Amino acid sequence: MVDLNRGSALGSSGASELFQLLRDGQPRTRAELAALTGLARSTIAARVETLMALELISPVGDAASTGGRPSSQFALNASARIVLAADLGATHATLAATDLAGVVLGEVHEDIDIASGPEAVLGWMVSAARQLLDELGRPHHDLIAIGVGVPGPVQHSTGRPVNPPIMPGWDRFDVPGWVQQHLEVPVLVDNDVNIMALGERAFAWPNTEHLMFVKVATGIGAGVISGGLLQRGAQGIAGDIGHVQVARGAGIPCHCGNRGCLEALASGPAIAKALREAGLDVASSRDVIELVKRGNIEAIQAVRQAGRDIGEVLTAAVSLINPSVIAIGGSMARAGEHLIAGVREIVYTRSMPLATEHLSIVQSSAAENAAVLGASMLAIHHALSPAGVDALSPRA
Amino acid sequence: MVDLNRGSALGSSGASELFQLLRDGQPRTRAELAALTGLARSTIAARVETLMALELISPVGDAASTGGRPSSQFALNASARIVLAADLGATHATLAATDLAGVVLGEVHEDIDIASGPEAVLGWMVSAARQLLDELGRPHHDLIAIGVGVPGPVQHSTGRPVNPPIMPGWDRFDVPGWVQQHLEVPVLVDNDVNIMALGERAFAWPNTEHLMFVKVATGIGAGVISGGLLQRGAQGIAGDIGHVQVARGAGIPCHCGNRGCLEALASGPAIAKALREAGLDVASSRDVIELVKRGNIEAIQAVRQAGRDIGEVLTAAVSLINPSVIAIGGSMARAGEHLIAGVREIVYTRSMPLATEHLSIVQSSAAENAAVLGASMLAIHHALSPAGVDALSPRA
Repeated sequence: MVDLNRGSALGSSGASELFQLLRDGQPRTRAELAALTGLARSTIAARVETLMALELISPVGDAASTGGRPSSQFALNASARIVLAADLGATHATLAATDLAGVVLGEVHEDIDIASGPEAVLGWMVSAARQLLDELGRPHHDLIAIGVGVPGPVQHSTGRPVNPPIMPGWDRFDVPGWVQQHLEVPVLVDNDVNIMALGERAFAWPNTEHLMFVKVATGIGAGVISGGLLQRGAQGIAGDIGHVQVARGAGIPCHCGNRGCLEALASGPAIAKALREAGLDVASSRDVIELVKRGNIEAIQAVRQAGRDIGEVLTAAVSLINPSVIAIGGSMARAGEHLIAGVREIVYTRSMPLATEHLSIVQSSAAENAAVLGASMLAIHHALSPAGVDALSPRA
Repeated sequence: MVDLNRGSALGSSGASELFQLLRDGQPRTRAELAALTGLARSTIAARVETLMALELISPVGDAASTGGRPSSQFALNASARIVLAADLGATHATLAATDLAGVVLGEVHEDIDIASGPEAVLGWMVSAARQLLDELGRPHHDLIAIGVGVPGPVQHSTGRPVNPPIMPGWDRFDVPGWVQQHLEVPVLVDNDVNIMALGERAFAWPNTEHLMFVKVATGIGAGVISGGLLQRGAQGIAGDIGHVQVARGAGIPCHCGNRGCLEALASGPAIAKALREAGLDVASSRDVIELVKRGNIEAIQAVRQAGRDIGEVLTAAVSLINPSVIAIGGSMARAGEHLIAGVREIVYTRSMPLATEHLSIVQSSAAENAAVLGASMLAIHHALSPAGVDALSPRA
């Protein structure tokens, strides 16, 4: 009746249990590992050998010894293997290779439309992956996982997009299955805003347990980290706040078929449309940002009002999940402080004092890199989990 | 940079790692335990001995053997120890004793005002605890933890209420410290709605990972379970939705100092006030429920409208955390289907189809027992955690 997190306590046969100890980068001796795990010395010796054969750990000089044979220390070998991190956007894609600490080793960009379908986009990704591995001089065997972010809802357990509105042809498409026909490693797929939340946390807030990342661009969505874990919800769509109704929205039609949705008022295209209707020469979100930067008062007021609308929905979020950080990213965050000022105005006015006492509402620090960094974290976390480590074989 | 859940893999010296395996109630032999943990046979033998001495596990007959000496099996001994579960409400308190599977062994009720302060209320709890242990014929040493629910925000890590509006004298009061002067066991304190969420899940939805419990009574609050874990948020006030503003609320003053809060429109007293202003003879929430049960059309409409207001806030919650169950409890849930019909009307109209496709919005099944059951779960989960087991000593 009570939750158990058995985690690595049940770690089957493997060397993974030891490895979980060494992932923090701190070197340890065999004796320290034995003391920390309660495993027999002979078991420790065998498991260290396995991890050394996988090159996941390496000796790092000798520990101070009280005489006799010096005791070797071992630590994570971050350069032993690599992961790939893909950020597949609406009209642009990025693929990066990172080491096991998330450091980017190389990156490829491409203008490609997600609406051209999974085979075209993933086909590009696979050839870009091969090119990247070749350029880095790393054999394919060094690759141990791929993390992929896409602009739509994803059933995380299977890696299949589910009813993604701007991804025609991708509904229930088996992304991992298709990619694995070409690159035989685990493929983790998630919604782009979820991976941006992971990336933002890794980059700027590694010790924060409760963080929301809000992306304001063509659409509006949030990634929610609570208790240190990404929250995906029952259908993998937690954080899909773009279609919550806001007070100012009465009657305004949204592309989802409903009226008054946040996205119909506060997204980049919605702000552009409102300014155009007010007689300004504005074709796109980019034009809005340009006007704001040039100090146009109507544009500044429109962006600030969009911030207030977003703040209205975030007030409910603050009450419901009580985060300590809300990071605002996405292309519209480039409009600077005006958007965030609107968010702050409403959240701080309407929330209970205890909920906002220690709440930071800030611009994303990871910015353009949030998605790639988050996809890398997703891949590393999976590959270096106990089950992931048990599944690895030594390099050729 | 990546989350580790080291859990019991680092389980210090103790026997706790083995015990986590046996908590599911399934009997296992020493050989099975050795295979599952990778620990040496000699280590297993010592740890089984420790757990037997604590009486947390017992032999349960002999496993089929291939000849030679039969292998004993061991399983959780749910009756070995007990926990206490307290539900301290605004004007009424309950204290129950349960076994390690959450089965209630005895219960005491008392009309006591939470506003009479911590020493009066906790003093009653301590003497009720002694009385209960005596009546059950269990020595004090059998008690291994106490779970306590209170009607206000709590800093869960310290067990101190924080700015609780209806609990004068309790602000930052060291509840565990005070109780432990009389009963020397771990004391876990949490908000009443949080423990109701735990209780509802244990009672009716043990396999549901994403559940919201919404209490509608004198106040309105929610307990959020995501990914199988209770979410308390950064300040322990996650789920405090009573003061989110709703559209219909414009201008209506709330006791919190703001205007238009959900609680000022849809709580029991708010509905009673609205009906009184419409000329009905209604003094309390109880009168509202009576009228509804007698089929009074104004009362039914008022309750249904309260459901719609609650639904407005829950629509944001559904987008944000994507639960698969929303259970509605608290005294106003006794008004039957009218309240829930209002909630459903708005949530199903305004949410994205994917979010509501598999969403159940239902009346609480645990009802009055949700809080006591949840407090018991809180206590058991702590006492039987690896650290909790390591801290136990054999019975006198």
